[in-house]
Amino acid sequence: MGDYTPTPADKFAFGMWTIGHPGRDPFGDATRPPIDPVDYVRGLADIGAWGVSFHDDDLMTFGAPESQRRAELDRFKKALSDTGIVCSMATTNLFWHPMFKDGAFTSNDRNVRRLAIQKSMRNLDVAAELGAPTYVFWGGREGVESAASKTPADALDRYREALDFLASYVVDQGYSIRFAIEPKPNEPRGDTFLPTVGHALAFIETLDHADMVGLNPEVAHETMAGLSFYQGVAQTLWQGKLFHIDLNDQKIGRYDQDLRFGSEGIKDDFMVVRLLENSGYDGPKHFDARPYRNENGDGIWDFARGCMRTYLIFREKAKEFDANPKVKQALADAGVPELAIPTVGPYSRATADELLAEKFDPETLASRGYRNEQLDQLVIDTILGA
Amino acid sequence: MGDYTPTPADKFAFGMWTIGHPGRDPFGDATRPPIDPVDYVRGLADIGAWGVSFHDDDLMTFGAPESQRRAELDRFKKALSDTGIVCSMATTNLFWHPMFKDGAFTSNDRNVRRLAIQKSMRNLDVAAELGAPTYVFWGGREGVESAASKTPADALDRYREALDFLASYVVDQGYSIRFAIEPKPNEPRGDTFLPTVGHALAFIETLDHADMVGLNPEVAHETMAGLSFYQGVAQTLWQGKLFHIDLNDQKIGRYDQDLRFGSEGIKDDFMVVRLLENSGYDGPKHFDARPYRNENGDGIWDFARGCMRTYLIFREKAKEFDANPKVKQALADAGVPELAIPTVGPYSRATADELLAEKFDPETLASRGYRNEQLDQLVIDTILGA
Amino acid sequence: MGDYTPTPADKFAFGMWTIGHPGRDPFGDATRPPIDPVDYVRGLADIGAWGVSFHDDDLMTFGAPESQRRAELDRFKKALSDTGIVCSMATTNLFWHPMFKDGAFTSNDRNVRRLAIQKSMRNLDVAAELGAPTYVFWGGREGVESAASKTPADALDRYREALDFLASYVVDQGYSIRFAIEPKPNEPRGDTFLPTVGHALAFIETLDHADMVGLNPEVAHETMAGLSFYQGVAQTLWQGKLFHIDLNDQKIGRYDQDLRFGSEGIKDDFMVVRLLENSGYDGPKHFDARPYRNENGDGIWDFARGCMRTYLIFREKAKEFDANPKVKQALADAGVPELAIPTVGPYSRATADELLAEKFDPETLASRGYRNEQLDQLVIDTILGA
Amino acid sequence: MGDYTPTPADKFAFGMWTIGHPGRDPFGDATRPPIDPVDYVRGLADIGAWGVSFHDDDLMTFGAPESQRRAELDRFKKALSDTGIVCSMATTNLFWHPMFKDGAFTSNDRNVRRLAIQKSMRNLDVAAELGAPTYVFWGGREGVESAASKTPADALDRYREALDFLASYVVDQGYSIRFAIEPKPNEPRGDTFLPTVGHALAFIETLDHADMVGLNPEVAHETMAGLSFYQGVAQTLWQGKLFHIDLNDQKIGRYDQDLRFGSEGIKDDFMVVRLLENSGYDGPKHFDARPYRNENGDGIWDFARGCMRTYLIFREKAKEFDANPKVKQALADAGVPELAIPTVGPYSRATADELLAEKFDPETLASRGYRNEQLDQLVIDTILGA
Repeated sequence: MGDYTPTPADKFAFGMWTIGHPGRDPFGDATRPPIDPVDYVRGLADIGAWGVSFHDDDLMTFGAPESQRRAELDRFKKALSDTGIVCSMATTNLFWHPMFKDGAFTSNDRNVRRLAIQKSMRNLDVAAELGAPTYVFWGGREGVESAASKTPADALDRYREALDFLASYVVDQGYSIRFAIEPKPNEPRGDTFLPTVGHALAFIETLDHADMVGLNPEVAHETMAGLSFYQGVAQTLWQGKLFHIDLNDQKIGRYDQDLRFGSEGIKDDFMVVRLLENSGYDGPKHFDARPYRNENGDGIWDFARGCMRTYLIFREKAKEFDANPKVKQALADAGVPELAIPTVGPYSRATADELLAEKFDPETLASRGYRNEQLDQLVIDTILGA
Repeated sequence: MGDYTPTPADKFAFGMWTIGHPGRDPFGDATRPPIDPVDYVRGLADIGAWGVSFHDDDLMTFGAPESQRRAELDRFKKALSDTGIVCSMATTNLFWHPMFKDGAFTSNDRNVRRLAIQKSMRNLDVAAELGAPTYVFWGGREGVESAASKTPADALDRYREALDFLASYVVDQGYSIRFAIEPKPNEPRGDTFLPTVGHALAFIETLDHADMVGLNPEVAHETMAGLSFYQGVAQTLWQGKLFHIDLNDQKIGRYDQDLRFGSEGIKDDFMVVRLLENSGYDGPKHFDARPYRNENGDGIWDFARGCMRTYLIFREKAKEFDANPKVKQALADAGVPELAIPTVGPYSRATADELLAEKFDPETLASRGYRNEQLDQLVIDTILGA
Repeated sequence: MGDYTPTPADKFAFGMWTIGHPGRDPFGDATRPPIDPVDYVRGLADIGAWGVSFHDDDLMTFGAPESQRRAELDRFKKALSDTGIVCSMATTNLFWHPMFKDGAFTSNDRNVRRLAIQKSMRNLDVAAELGAPTYVFWGGREGVESAASKTPADALDRYREALDFLASYVVDQGYSIRFAIEPKPNEPRGDTFLPTVGHALAFIETLDHADMVGLNPEVAHETMAGLSFYQGVAQTLWQGKLFHIDLNDQKIGRYDQDLRFGSEGIKDDFMVVRLLENSGYDGPKHFDARPYRNENGDGIWDFARGCMRTYLIFREKAKEFDANPKVKQALADAGVPELAIPTVGPYSRATADELLAEKFDPETLASRGYRNEQLDQLVIDTILGA
Repeated sequence: MGDYTPTPADKFAFGMWTIGHPGRDPFGDATRPPIDPVDYVRGLADIGAWGVSFHDDDLMTFGAPESQRRAELDRFKKALSDTGIVCSMATTNLFWHPMFKDGAFTSNDRNVRRLAIQKSMRNLDVAAELGAPTYVFWGGREGVESAASKTPADALDRYREALDFLASYVVDQGYSIRFAIEPKPNEPRGDTFLPTVGHALAFIETLDHADMVGLNPEVAHETMAGLSFYQGVAQTLWQGKLFHIDLNDQKIGRYDQDLRFGSEGIKDDFMVVRLLENSGYDGPKHFDARPYRNENGDGIWDFARGCMRTYLIFREKAKEFDANPKVKQALADAGVPELAIPTVGPYSRATADELLAEKFDPETLASRGYRNEQLDQLVIDTILGA
């Protein structure tokens, strides 16, 4: 058994709102005081993290004079510089202030929409200044409770318009920033536009700068809809769009839990780590989770350490799994490598005729067993270390 | 109150496997005898339906000699011709026979994959002969129980390869057929590839003949994942990909129920009918539902009549809703028309500068109320006829 | 179509936290100012409501001097007296203050548990003073995120101990108050103790004063778990335990939405109203819902009116349904009255022997059709007014 | 790492329909041939199982002459005797034959209800002959699709009547048999009566022979509704009603998957094993699961071995967890032992007065951290063997 102590080389990142989440929920007040951003960054360095991400309002007081905002930002920059913590991602808070109650890019109020774009532009400037390579768009309140309250085509038009405008702004400013859309099926709205990885991938194809827009899939969000996060990340990778990733945990069919990574969907989480490690993905492993609300003091850092520790354990287990001769045999028994072989190749009249002429014996084909239980038990054995 | 008696002009269609479903389920045997295809088509004509759809194996005995299959097909064609029922859609049965137990286009057995493509080609010939304009691909068993049993990228490669090959075949044969992918999140597999409308839309963009491939969304399938079918159909229309539609009903988070259309998600169903009727969609309204298993005899036709009746009631109510002055006022109060106005227009440096210079008062923006409860109550009042 | 204007005779009640909910959610601040309790009570009277319910902290500032709390209470009593609004239910806020973050009656901190009981006793005194006949126990934070953090048997012991103590206090004080447990499956905790109507009914049987403890089932809570609220209320009535009811609405498998009654699960809601009206239940019809967060001003009263209006529409439709000769025939066709006939009667050796000797023909029994589609379509027709 | 080879002392049991499930599902035919009951029992002995359970129709051909049924039964008895496999549980098939399509004990057809009771009586005789101490009642089709199709109170009356009659029959015959109700929320019916552990526990209290009726909770069934199986089993034990247990696995909000035990909800499963092992429960550990449908031949025994292996791994880990000093400290840090201390003790006027006079400081109470993340990470570390 390994050491599982993270180092910056592991590229673990946390949002400012995660370990620092005050524990406020729909039925209760904050249970923890806010953490000063400088202490926060130092804490991240102490536990071996590499990066930090932020919403504009996490760092700079919304509505404060520019001089105050600049001072707040400079203080944060110094903390980054002092600790070596990297600013790995930035995003806009378009959900907290009551003006966003009907949405931001898709609010029925055109002025709210304009303000939302302006607010994003200003924080893109900050993101560029801090060197954040990725800018996330989580459409928290882009949705409805009452389906009649927005014409969906108009909402999608406005969503596209906002992203096209902002992408053009980035290009125009010469920023080295890519966008990552973060889908979510519901909460805080009854139904959200772009509810899953799939819907967001499809939407991207309609954008003017589709090449600079990818995804930031999140464990909790796909899991809320009962979808396999592993399969969602895999399709995202397959479509070349995994620009960022939000790791946490969640039970299916519940409120957004943002649990410690690896604490709930153990098997799917293991498969995700194996996939990431084998895929060549070299972006941040970003934890968008929060400590249990009854935690404070040291407890919140227990939480942060646990996220990274479990990732590292899974990483080691993924290597063991792939190196295990019994696994290799089981994969062969299940026919896994055979799926990598083209079925028919590119179409031609000749290939078609040949295929049409081929004789198959359904009973023989049906008699094959795929030994998936054996393979799956090896996954479980690996996870359990048994 | 209207008459709600359907006519062929309403373009209602039923699959051969729907009204005729024998009532077999995971815990019990068939409760109803099969219906002869000719009687089935006559029954459809009697109740005012317009179209019928089929799987190859619904019409022609799988594995039977060609002469028998031809006779079965000719008999069916005669029934269509006698009744005027249109063949509105065709599809391949790639899930029933045990050889498909590991999938069809994504089976780990290459020969199964080849047979699946061959079987589809042969039924495309039949579809063309019957004049079916749409060919549906429901990936029933394209999925896994154990995530390790298929490399997702390989599975998606094979899925794409199959659709590319078949689309080329259609083009090469000169058939006037478009493809429609039907997503489903799970069942009969633990997790299905292309689980939602979104995932399938994104996948289509990777195909060689993307323009001839669209979707066949189904109420039950999106609802199983807790997604709003209305929003899913709306995005599909927005992306120009609503090629066909499967109407039925379902509770969230359950086995695939295929309930009578309009019997469960009343509000979402109403919104779907309003959307379809206002969208210019002129394809079939296809019911992929089945009678309760404790139904037989006349009862199964009660079911079929109910599907169409409720659609027609919703269609009338949608017109009432859109014509109601109180609704128009409520839409205005909610700012619905305002969402159709561009937010910023196309990007230019000047537009950007102008927006950056604009002053907004957050408190004023926050003080607006959107009167969505009023609007939603009018939806309910309309549905309830109150 | 009727008038649907509520009067006090309809016994509609609202909690202080419902129409007055400030719109705060996990991702955003309050969107509406608090409403003064006196204005609130007047507003209820204006819209035709009959009753009001409260948490201690809704009326009297937590931690304030007794003199202030008395003044706040007296002011509220005067408003009740001025308007004729009845105090129909009371409950304790055991979830908002951070000290309850690990639970109240089942907190791992014994002092928190003691305080929770003390707080409940004090508000039982208030409830008695205000004449509230029912005292609700919603175990909001009685649960866990990490299963290991509480031994479930200990938690259930403590839960029972608290209710036993409080029931004895009520008896000892001579108050005319009954208890109603309100189950919920999750949120704000990952898993709640007594998650459904069933679990709470079973728990009640273990209490010292089981006869004075019943349920307060809530639409949203049962629906979150995908259970039919109608069936849950029916079992509660069957077990003689429907002491109160919380009406609102919800989609399955989501965060607690507390939507306007009748706005989502239309069919189940209709059946619930029919059940209540036919059951002899004469307690409050209590709405534990809240306006959409993007609502304010008049909009929140639109919400309140809508809850009552839809109830009244369903009540009228329920009468129509039961009086409709086609429904009576359809119920007979479905064999509904036959289920009221005893199957075998009480056991005796003779009855057993007789039954064992009886001959049945399975095929004949299997040939019966139950015409449930016809009956269900009449439910839909009634709901749609078609 | 241990050996994890099961022995009869572990009391692992399998139903006849589990390893032997033919792989038939709603969208496909059987993929495996039936296994002769004698071979089945021998197979169980070979893999180290201890017990077997059966439905009447698993052993004796439904409707066959008594002589044939007797021969089938005797052959099975001989296999038990030859192998030492114990008959650990019996149950009635009240769901397969089409006559049960509207339910069995709650069918609207009184003759079906009578036949269902008769069929159960006859198999109780067989159960007694085979020495099965537990008789399970899974109400597979006791439910509805259309809520109007059964009056719930009548359905619950008939359900109770059936169980009362059958319990009296058992008493009258002098059989040493206890009943165990197996709840399930839905499938194959849209909504099932007694949908969860809680509803069934509450129902039992209304029975004439409540003391001889307990529960048979199943992982998959509670999990379908998103409830924690661990918490459900814990309440069942707390109420003294854990008479039997069905171990398998499942994802939330899906069709009944009956997956290999330990293959999905790893954390909840671990907690369940720990609970069972620490509770004194000494009944069967019964696997009501089935091999993946694409499995056959040796593969189905891989499945069976995997169920037992993972149980044994969890059993060992549970011991490790409870013996780990770090865990003991973490439990103390979380206040877990403190929950075992009575809060107030039995009620008396003096105790009440004392509690009312006690002073608490909410801020001090709120300042406590519960260190649940630390504890939960130790659960994960134990599961992962890290």
